[in-house]
Amino acid sequence: MNKFSYEVIKECPHTGARAGIFHTPHGDIETPIFMPVGTQATVKGLKPEELKELGAQIILSNTYHLYLRPGADIVKQAGGLHKFMNWDRPILTDSGGFQVFSLSGLRKISDEGVEFRSHLSGAKHFITPEKDMEIQEALGADIIMAFDQCTPAGCSYQEAVEARRITKLWLERCYKAHTSDEQMLFPIVQGNIYEDLRRECVKDCLPYAKCGIAIGGLSVGEEKSVMYQILDLLNPLLPKDQPRYLMGVGSPDCLVEGYARGVDMMDCVLPTRIARNGTAFTKKGKMVIKNAIYKDDFRPIEDDCDCYACKHFSRAYIRHLINAGEMLGAELLSIHNLRNLIKLAGDCRKAILGDYFKDFKEEYMASYDLSKSNF
Amino acid sequence: MNKFSYEVIKECPHTGARAGIFHTPHGDIETPIFMPVGTQATVKGLKPEELKELGAQIILSNTYHLYLRPGADIVKQAGGLHKFMNWDRPILTDSGGFQVFSLSGLRKISDEGVEFRSHLSGAKHFITPEKDMEIQEALGADIIMAFDQCTPAGCSYQEAVEARRITKLWLERCYKAHTSDEQMLFPIVQGNIYEDLRRECVKDCLPYAKCGIAIGGLSVGEEKSVMYQILDLLNPLLPKDQPRYLMGVGSPDCLVEGYARGVDMMDCVLPTRIARNGTAFTKKGKMVIKNAIYKDDFRPIEDDCDCYACKHFSRAYIRHLINAGEMLGAELLSIHNLRNLIKLAGDCRKAILGDYFKDFKEEYMASYDLSKSNF
Repeated sequence: MNKFSYEVIKECPHTGARAGIFHTPHGDIETPIFMPVGTQATVKGLKPEELKELGAQIILSNTYHLYLRPGADIVKQAGGLHKFMNWDRPILTDSGGFQVFSLSGLRKISDEGVEFRSHLSGAKHFITPEKDMEIQEALGADIIMAFDQCTPAGCSYQEAVEARRITKLWLERCYKAHTSDEQMLFPIVQGNIYEDLRRECVKDCLPYAKCGIAIGGLSVGEEKSVMYQILDLLNPLLPKDQPRYLMGVGSPDCLVEGYARGVDMMDCVLPTRIARNGTAFTKKGKMVIKNAIYKDDFRPIEDDCDCYACKHFSRAYIRHLINAGEMLGAELLSIHNLRNLIKLAGDCRKAILGDYFKDFKEEYMASYDLSKSNF
Repeated sequence: MNKFSYEVIKECPHTGARAGIFHTPHGDIETPIFMPVGTQATVKGLKPEELKELGAQIILSNTYHLYLRPGADIVKQAGGLHKFMNWDRPILTDSGGFQVFSLSGLRKISDEGVEFRSHLSGAKHFITPEKDMEIQEALGADIIMAFDQCTPAGCSYQEAVEARRITKLWLERCYKAHTSDEQMLFPIVQGNIYEDLRRECVKDCLPYAKCGIAIGGLSVGEEKSVMYQILDLLNPLLPKDQPRYLMGVGSPDCLVEGYARGVDMMDCVLPTRIARNGTAFTKKGKMVIKNAIYKDDFRPIEDDCDCYACKHFSRAYIRHLINAGEMLGAELLSIHNLRNLIKLAGDCRKAILGDYFKDFKEEYMASYDLSKSNF
């Protein structure tokens, strides 16, 4: 019995955009979507009910962080991430590969795996693809990621070639080690900005992509135009009957541009991170709400926004909270920013289903101020 | 037309406890009560709906903090505190006197008022009783406090005598300056631990107590037994037909002991402050949830607690959140701790109405571990 399936409901005739449904053991996901990030088994400051209220269909959590604290054994004893954090909708965990390379100190990579030091305690750890699958199975997310090597922007061709070799090797081992049919393993297409490598990486992944494939290594420092170019390249190469997940990308403009290039799933810490710094997404670009011009501005962040923050509080109040270091400020802006992206994904879906996505995208991008999209 | 009134519904025949109703412009308050503190126009981390869900009938906010940031003019422009923070139930503001003496640097006190430096910017400010009334009227709380001089524990008799003289002088000026009939001004009984001064202070206050009187200068460092002694002394001296507010006191044992001595209203930052440090109130004393013994304890904080945190999350999860520095941990413990005190106040009220308060108090205090009440 297959517990995962994906169906395309409608394709945009003018762009690569598609509307679909991704069936998972914890419920259906209507794509395209944006997924809030709950790094440490919590989307910072928000309760599960609040996430549901703002329309979150699935959330993401980070294997690297949970492995180090509280430990996969604790989460497993709790009955898995869903029970531990009281979230009954789908969850996706990344493999931790990205964090091992970006957060931890002293790493030694070999064909066997990666040795690294915890950014918390400094303790040494060694992760293999098999160990990674074991950890992700203990965490119990619906969708899990292959352990891979993500290369940074500016990485040389030779480094990217080597990373592809390792990533392919590890993918095969992840696939063999992963046995639970309650979890779907997504291979990750790497290849940095090198088009021929990206093509090869797709070929590496296809045998292991059963119901979902991820695009990694983008939005790591390259220009947005380069990211869009890679997405244009990948769109026709990726299986049409599987969901495509663009990892770690989540500004409003990137969502619209990504969906237009056949991406179905996206995630990013951006909406909650900039919230904590006092910045809001709006349909016209960012609003730095901690600025003094908002001190006596008693309008909501956005007049026509249906989020809890906009329905109940003013810019002046939220500015006060942020400036006073009050948690509620970060909470309200997180709610607004997540709702902004989730509603945008839903609006894109409606536009695809209603056959007006191309116009929707053009209008959206015309009114969006890209100069206010540097987060 | 009098917008405030208080009625005693029932008196305990064995103790000083009373159950009553305090009618205010923003609704009725069933006493005895505990009032959550929202220092900077927000109870740290919680939304108004969450406060209502846990049974908060009234909240407190701090004039000193709001005067400095965002400024009383901003709150007034917003339409007052209720609108600014989206709280439609009663609000009480303190006078800021306590904070001027405890938080700010360099203060010069004279009969005219107090000069002090902002703990935020270092800027000089001068507050008189008239100015204080103006600020509290701009904030627009239902219940406002007289500007007073609160003396610390260990203060000499002579200092307490002088503080009484100033407090009396300022009370008269507050009373004259306060004109709005939308707000009830509470005089504050000071006098430190000196019984004859406490008696004199009651006499100073009585002419100005129209529907409420506050007891200040307790829980500032003295032994609890000394506080209870002062409350025993004051109980027969205070008007029976007005609510009595014991300022800044709020551990579970102090609530029960305070209500038993005729106190109707209490407030404290304790429940939310210890929450942020990872400590929970329980019926048996404090639980330091960040301790390692809770790492795989999947029970709720308290089995029979009806709060949101206990209904949905385990000790292990909350411990993880606190240890990982996640806001949700402080939020959940704040909800639990506030619910603990508010339910305790409600249980005391039921016991008074049901004629079993004396037994209730004895049972509660017998099972409460006072050695776990050092917060």
